[in-house]
Amino acid sequence: MKNHEKSIDPASQKMLDKAYAEGIQTVWDRLEAQQPHCGFGELGLCCRHCNMGPCRIDPFGNGPKLGVCGANADTIASRQLVRMIAAGAAAHSDHGRDIVLAFRAAAEHGEGDYKFKDEKKLLALASEFNIPTEGRTIQEIALDVSDIALDEYGMRGQKLQFTKRAPKVRQDLWTSLGVDPRGIDREVVECMHRTTMGVDTDYVNLTLQGIRTSLSDGWGGSMWATELSDVLFGTPEVVKGWSNLGVLSDKEVNIVVHGHEPTLSDIIVFAARDPELLKKAKEKGAEGINICGMCCTGNEILMRHGVPIAGNFLQQELAIITGAVEAMIVDVQCIMPSLPTVANCFHTKVISTSPKAVFPGATHVPFDEKNAMETAKQIISIAIDNYPNRNQGRVNIPSDRMGYMAGFSVETILGALGGTLDPLLDAIKSGSIRGIAGIVGCNNPKVRQDHNHIALAKELIKNNVLVVETGCAAIASAKAGLLLPEAADMAGEGLAAVCRALGVPPVLHMGSCVDNSRVLVVAAAIANALGVDISDLPLAAAAPEWMSEKAVAIGTYAVSSGIYTVLNSPPPVLGSSNLTNLLTAGAEGVVGAVFAVEADPVKQAGLIIEHIEKKRTALGL
Amino acid sequence: MKNHEKSIDPASQKMLDKAYAEGIQTVWDRLEAQQPHCGFGELGLCCRHCNMGPCRIDPFGNGPKLGVCGANADTIASRQLVRMIAAGAAAHSDHGRDIVLAFRAAAEHGEGDYKFKDEKKLLALASEFNIPTEGRTIQEIALDVSDIALDEYGMRGQKLQFTKRAPKVRQDLWTSLGVDPRGIDREVVECMHRTTMGVDTDYVNLTLQGIRTSLSDGWGGSMWATELSDVLFGTPEVVKGWSNLGVLSDKEVNIVVHGHEPTLSDIIVFAARDPELLKKAKEKGAEGINICGMCCTGNEILMRHGVPIAGNFLQQELAIITGAVEAMIVDVQCIMPSLPTVANCFHTKVISTSPKAVFPGATHVPFDEKNAMETAKQIISIAIDNYPNRNQGRVNIPSDRMGYMAGFSVETILGALGGTLDPLLDAIKSGSIRGIAGIVGCNNPKVRQDHNHIALAKELIKNNVLVVETGCAAIASAKAGLLLPEAADMAGEGLAAVCRALGVPPVLHMGSCVDNSRVLVVAAAIANALGVDISDLPLAAAAPEWMSEKAVAIGTYAVSSGIYTVLNSPPPVLGSSNLTNLLTAGAEGVVGAVFAVEADPVKQAGLIIEHIEKKRTALGL
Repeated sequence: MKNHEKSIDPASQKMLDKAYAEGIQTVWDRLEAQQPHCGFGELGLCCRHCNMGPCRIDPFGNGPKLGVCGANADTIASRQLVRMIAAGAAAHSDHGRDIVLAFRAAAEHGEGDYKFKDEKKLLALASEFNIPTEGRTIQEIALDVSDIALDEYGMRGQKLQFTKRAPKVRQDLWTSLGVDPRGIDREVVECMHRTTMGVDTDYVNLTLQGIRTSLSDGWGGSMWATELSDVLFGTPEVVKGWSNLGVLSDKEVNIVVHGHEPTLSDIIVFAARDPELLKKAKEKGAEGINICGMCCTGNEILMRHGVPIAGNFLQQELAIITGAVEAMIVDVQCIMPSLPTVANCFHTKVISTSPKAVFPGATHVPFDEKNAMETAKQIISIAIDNYPNRNQGRVNIPSDRMGYMAGFSVETILGALGGTLDPLLDAIKSGSIRGIAGIVGCNNPKVRQDHNHIALAKELIKNNVLVVETGCAAIASAKAGLLLPEAADMAGEGLAAVCRALGVPPVLHMGSCVDNSRVLVVAAAIANALGVDISDLPLAAAAPEWMSEKAVAIGTYAVSSGIYTVLNSPPPVLGSSNLTNLLTAGAEGVVGAVFAVEADPVKQAGLIIEHIEKKRTALGL
Repeated sequence: MKNHEKSIDPASQKMLDKAYAEGIQTVWDRLEAQQPHCGFGELGLCCRHCNMGPCRIDPFGNGPKLGVCGANADTIASRQLVRMIAAGAAAHSDHGRDIVLAFRAAAEHGEGDYKFKDEKKLLALASEFNIPTEGRTIQEIALDVSDIALDEYGMRGQKLQFTKRAPKVRQDLWTSLGVDPRGIDREVVECMHRTTMGVDTDYVNLTLQGIRTSLSDGWGGSMWATELSDVLFGTPEVVKGWSNLGVLSDKEVNIVVHGHEPTLSDIIVFAARDPELLKKAKEKGAEGINICGMCCTGNEILMRHGVPIAGNFLQQELAIITGAVEAMIVDVQCIMPSLPTVANCFHTKVISTSPKAVFPGATHVPFDEKNAMETAKQIISIAIDNYPNRNQGRVNIPSDRMGYMAGFSVETILGALGGTLDPLLDAIKSGSIRGIAGIVGCNNPKVRQDHNHIALAKELIKNNVLVVETGCAAIASAKAGLLLPEAADMAGEGLAAVCRALGVPPVLHMGSCVDNSRVLVVAAAIANALGVDISDLPLAAAAPEWMSEKAVAIGTYAVSSGIYTVLNSPPPVLGSSNLTNLLTAGAEGVVGAVFAVEADPVKQAGLIIEHIEKKRTALGL
């Protein structure tokens, strides 16, 4: 495959050419080496859950149709799906846990490196949970909020608090299906239990537990991560900034923060402004310190501070290959284990910071929340010390960069609308906006980088569908210019008019992948305003380049919340026609939504538009 | 393979002959059909944790050495191991959760089908947790205990309560390694998070999280299951009963309870004594109702009530093939999905009862803890109604049965010793008992059924090693007569003399697989009495026919607690020589114990004896 076929992004293409010229292996090379993939694994027909196996089901011939224990294709595929959901939910919720603990520490200690930047949002949460506020300090109130958060991770509750944000009819549906999530950690653990040898065998029963677990992510762990991150680091407001590898500076110390959690990256942004560090950078011959983001850690600080974003998932190796990165600071999730190897070809230091994620070959500087600012400065200092090691002769920063407007939290959207959803509802009712689509998820080297994200988004806005995005999808749109108000020119007439009137782009960046919870909140608010269920709305979602198990959890809570969701490729379920039918057809009668799988992004848009028009008709619009 | 090569158990051999004659497929047939197993899976070199794969590492040739993300063999194998530990710990701890909830309900409602059968143990727990008891009702005290238990599943604690039962030096070691388990559910979730794409890459760091999670099982979920089951259903005392398929009755309604949880099975035992039901059974032509156990649900009621045990894991299908089982009642874990298919060849009804484990083809009667007795009677009634459908012409109950003496809880052992460990310590010091070995774990059709369990146990007792057992290992010994006091004749002189003096067998049945926590408590008590660490004791463990992911969790917490542990076959780690070395050698310097892998049971015994003698020498014995 030619390099330009691997990505639509010109910056990526240039760095792939450089990688090829310099003999540096990247993720695309490893994908090629791994082909052909194991067909049993791809179809979900491989089971390694006990030592009687490993077992494989023959999907075609006269080979075995049962594992040693007697599990058939339905059981094996659904177990694998449930473990993927459990892993994805665990990742989001464990990220949320760290936020809860940082929030708790701020509540307990009052002063420290973490303060409550958005007290208004904290008070709103207190009010939501009926926590008294009159005559109490913000710390006392926060402590009560953190008590509720801690209990949500345990097993004391019967039903997670934030599920009450869903329309009543949706809540009742979940209760009738027995899928009310009871505790964030509990559901993941029950998934693992039920998928061990000799426990749950019924693919429907297993899938229902997968649904419950995904809800504990979307309306639980992820939502707590978003809500308390906003309180701690500030609720995003409209910001502008720059994207793509061109944001790297040829004369400054380039520090790329990569991973998912804001606890470190947010502090890094402020630490980089320290006069002592800036002085030190100049002493080392640099003109300054340039903090850039990558993936969702990048999105967190992009949303709150307009920090430049160097790229999305498939660009993490390419950023290093520019030769201009002094340090890539990583926390957790979506960090390629290959980074230290690639960094070894340059002067770049990969600095791991989380006790949960250690990378052989990287420098490990354990991030201590209690001394957050100090650790942040220590890490920046390492990067500055590394600047003189940069070989300027090998530096090749692509000039490609693109501006963005972001920061579209629920609060920002409401603000842009003048404090009420009514203008949006009116636009939907009048048909100038036909509906809303959320495009989320990763990159995957099996898909030409950003191609699906961009082709889908363009087709949707052209057809007057407002697009909201998170994660790597949003970064793709940033790089393609779709996050600029001027992108209204690419939208259909109705949507373009609304965007111009409000001064917003037709694609709204709502944050990191845990911030898909913001999409749920918006969906619930619209449904509540119209007095209908989420599944009645002209609303859909897509993960057109998905890669992570987190995407499986997100897709499942989207569908389980009533949102039609399109994937470019299926999770490993095709070996079970029963499970495949349940997910793509049967679920309609259960949760009022299904998954669809379609590789072509223009056809994906077609499916979404068809869905939106069907829902509009049903609503009498 | 001939049928007598599949099992050493004559009852199993006869039923295998019957299965063959009648064309009924069993687990051994399915094992044969699955061969050859996938070598990548066996070596731990297959990764399916994201949609860039599935990936496989070539262990020999010029194929790929890295997954698409860049993960190498170390990362992939250790991730798989950690997920197996997480699943096993989840299974035990989720079982514990149900016990905690039943205990909580009994505390809250006072009266109900669950009462506190062992108030003395409840008060001991209260004392251990510094809960005031003076002038308080047992319900009030129980509520406080249940509060602590609930918090252990959450994330409020820094360290699980029962870890304090370990010797101080061991606790300090765990703290210094950073592996103090913080919350039972939390550790499982963190495992799942750290094994998603792009999080933890370092095999040592991953293994440490596996260790922490396993400790949250052994000293957490499993120990809570044991402790509160004892309070609710009674702490086991010495009981006698019968084992093997010969316990099935040709003239009574045979009900086999299979699975792992005592919440239903304990109630079933009492419900079967109901005069109305007995009358109904007689009306249907039966002489009575015969409740038998299978696997660990069987062990729970065997230990507390001397209920006959029909067999261990590999006999679940064979019990049905006798043609004499009216109902097989299953709850969770180790239940072959094949049971309804086998039952279809006979009149047997497979009745599933847990919302966590539904089996297509079985009758699902959801067990409601709030109406436990009523549900139990309903289920027994279904079995009675099925009695007339028994085709006596197809009945073939092997005559093989063997007596057992069981019930060796920690309290029973102390009682047998006269209330103090001293006689046992004296016997160890004098050398009449050389040491103690725990034999635990499953059956696996890859091993001739019970062969390793029995050969290993015989070799050990012959060499004056006291054997303690749980789970399917203990059932194997029951069937082989090793649980009878007369088995002292098979023991070496020193051990035989001690057994005869105390009137106990040389192999002590300590309970179900969660009751491996009892072994930990005994080990800790001996270490504390001698003022040394558990790793200093002449003590070892073996899982010579392991199958379940639970065994991986158990083995890991044994080693992490300082207990040398022998397996007959390795978990899927051999593809990583680094990880294999860590587990079998490097761990000695970390936790003071290692895993050993040896297929031959006599050689397993040799390894254990060698270990015990080494520890004796170091202690100056």
